[in-house]
Amino acid sequence: MKRGVGVGVIGYGTIGAGVVRLLRQRVKAHGDRLGFPVRLARVADLDTSSDRGIKLPTGVLIDDARALIDDPSVNVVVELVGGVEPARTFILEALRAGKHVVTANKALLSEHGVALSREAEKRGLLLGFEASVGGGIPIVRTIKESLAGDTNEEVYGILNGTANYILSAMSEGEGEFEEVLARAQAMGLAEADPSYDVDGIDSVHKLVILVGLAFGKKIKARSVHVEGIRSVSSKEIAYAREFGYRVKLLAVARDTPAGVEARVHPSMVPESHLLAQVSGAYNAVCIKGRALGNSVYYGQGAGMMPTATAVLGDILEAARSLRDERPPSSEPWGQPLARLSSARVIPMGDTAHEHYLRLTVVDKPGALARISSILADEGIGIATLSQHEIETRGAVPVVLRTYRSAESAMKRALARVGRLRDNRAKPVLLRVEEGLGGRE
Amino acid sequence: MKRGVGVGVIGYGTIGAGVVRLLRQRVKAHGDRLGFPVRLARVADLDTSSDRGIKLPTGVLIDDARALIDDPSVNVVVELVGGVEPARTFILEALRAGKHVVTANKALLSEHGVALSREAEKRGLLLGFEASVGGGIPIVRTIKESLAGDTNEEVYGILNGTANYILSAMSEGEGEFEEVLARAQAMGLAEADPSYDVDGIDSVHKLVILVGLAFGKKIKARSVHVEGIRSVSSKEIAYAREFGYRVKLLAVARDTPAGVEARVHPSMVPESHLLAQVSGAYNAVCIKGRALGNSVYYGQGAGMMPTATAVLGDILEAARSLRDERPPSSEPWGQPLARLSSARVIPMGDTAHEHYLRLTVVDKPGALARISSILADEGIGIATLSQHEIETRGAVPVVLRTYRSAESAMKRALARVGRLRDNRAKPVLLRVEEGLGGRE
Repeated sequence: MKRGVGVGVIGYGTIGAGVVRLLRQRVKAHGDRLGFPVRLARVADLDTSSDRGIKLPTGVLIDDARALIDDPSVNVVVELVGGVEPARTFILEALRAGKHVVTANKALLSEHGVALSREAEKRGLLLGFEASVGGGIPIVRTIKESLAGDTNEEVYGILNGTANYILSAMSEGEGEFEEVLARAQAMGLAEADPSYDVDGIDSVHKLVILVGLAFGKKIKARSVHVEGIRSVSSKEIAYAREFGYRVKLLAVARDTPAGVEARVHPSMVPESHLLAQVSGAYNAVCIKGRALGNSVYYGQGAGMMPTATAVLGDILEAARSLRDERPPSSEPWGQPLARLSSARVIPMGDTAHEHYLRLTVVDKPGALARISSILADEGIGIATLSQHEIETRGAVPVVLRTYRSAESAMKRALARVGRLRDNRAKPVLLRVEEGLGGRE
Repeated sequence: MKRGVGVGVIGYGTIGAGVVRLLRQRVKAHGDRLGFPVRLARVADLDTSSDRGIKLPTGVLIDDARALIDDPSVNVVVELVGGVEPARTFILEALRAGKHVVTANKALLSEHGVALSREAEKRGLLLGFEASVGGGIPIVRTIKESLAGDTNEEVYGILNGTANYILSAMSEGEGEFEEVLARAQAMGLAEADPSYDVDGIDSVHKLVILVGLAFGKKIKARSVHVEGIRSVSSKEIAYAREFGYRVKLLAVARDTPAGVEARVHPSMVPESHLLAQVSGAYNAVCIKGRALGNSVYYGQGAGMMPTATAVLGDILEAARSLRDERPPSSEPWGQPLARLSSARVIPMGDTAHEHYLRLTVVDKPGALARISSILADEGIGIATLSQHEIETRGAVPVVLRTYRSAESAMKRALARVGRLRDNRAKPVLLRVEEGLGGRE
């Protein structure tokens, strides 16, 4: 293994081009740093003709991923295709061919992460996925290695830059969801099909990965409760500010004796919490450990160069393994796979929250009494209630915050309130996150 | 090496007791996680009689550090004595005896870090010092490994929890420096001799370590400009708030073609910067990388269990090395020592800043004109100037902010202003940090 490291990149899109750029710009620096040369050997993409603004030597860019995997000059394969297939097959084939693998593919990892890791672990190979969560934030290695001595109790944060960008812009008065989304799309900050980002699916994938790393628990993405931000209006953002809160799309997981609490939905975060200060396309991950207490990791959650930096960190780890002819410094999930256990996700109905509720009711005596009596009947205590000025003819907004109450009770109450004739619009429900980081 | 890892802890103070507690509480979990048992073999301290609330098996606690180092059942030595000697000798002897070493000793590392690392590198041993900077914040490994693919341009932050606690309390109106310090001492949050913390020395040591890791540059602690917080009064804090700033003790380093800019002093930080939100005993480290952009790492900067967690992360890395019979995953400074270069620290006079200046001048016509003309003469532009109400008989506070101007020019101007008869008190100078993270 004297020749150094040959890197093969499958998928020459935005991130792929960033990785190629970093590898080529700093090829000498990396080699010097490691005392072992690292070079770009092959790039594979079905599209070999588009101009990425990078001049590759003839023969480096090919259209056949399998030829890249089989190429003996490639000993680290970087998968940046995205999606489940053929990415999964590429990774398996690369590992079976004895090559280290680096990927940024959270959708794949949240579903097949354990199976793929089995293949890597069996062969003493790296399966690096630093770039899959938090873009440029080095959260994966931090949990795997630095926090390995502690028992993690909570992991939560802002995991999707697009959704956070939209909520931040709405918070700055730049319009309602649809308008801000359209502008973000025009600026290339949101995909043509934004559903992964704005409906919370991307955050769920990342949360599943974080739960595996932080708690050593395997949970299924489909059992994570998810609500996106399409229904958040600037009204909620304004009321939240009035109460001293910001509206953020949070992904929250807690390890409890009853199972893992894991959920993704818009939340009201107190202004004094660091997460309230995370704006634009930035991400932040918070971890609460029994010994360490609270720690926060903040940085660019997406984007070409930040994500490419995370990929490169993994490539360099593979390079150190190859240089020293040893397995990677830690297993893909920070511990032997046999130590990971499958865990139940606590159904959303069985969790409890402080709730924010905005109702639009008829401006007649008795409406408020009927609503209050339903809440009382379901055992939900009202902490604050404010009736605002008439909005539209005869309809008045009522904004209330509850004490901590069962999600199932709130769901039943909402159904009953929804059937009242007093309603003039669909009630809006958000959870208030007072307890994050053990603040309760 | 089938028997697993035996850990020897030298120094059974607060952090030592935390490490012992973590090792004993989670001995089985660590062993399972690694597939390789990790156990506490020996603890050495001159004081073997004080009660630390932990029951150790007979014979584990000894008073002879050298006996611990020589003990064949110890293969990882944890140095928690602090200070330069005998800590330096203990570490050298441990390395020469072929043992991995973990330390939290920033004073020692900032002075002898390179020499000690030479010994570790030569023998393929770990010299782990995660706990030396940022307490529980895993910043050392993050820079060494995760950010290894990038070129770091700036590293800065709040590196001393005691100083930040005092400034936060002053900011909450809890009194002037001396009162708040006395209370912090009574609560065990500040040492009896607080000079390391409040005079910025501790921050300088940590900054020297960060510069080595982030820039690969060796700088001398004594060439870092340092000012502590003793001269910060609640007046500065109040004026800062008026301008939309917080006063923080910052450690700032920039890698420039002319050398390394490295300085520790109280600064005015814009409220919108995450650092402004870091309060109490928390620390935060910010890094600006060419590819990664800005990232921030936040957590408890000191304290028994957070620091012990960082020590334990290093112990577990040593354990993985022993288990796999291989050298540690990366060199102490993240790259071969031969790659580190000695760098010049740019003299403070050659740096430029926006300045905040508070003068107390005689309330007579002409005073302001004389001061303005001195500043103009030194080429310092005034951005804002406000004269406040008379404080004491005939003396009026004048608060001004300058445009970016040379530190040397400001020093000359201050000397000249100081000689004016108009002065009623010593001028107060702070730097305004608008440009952190490339915000300029």
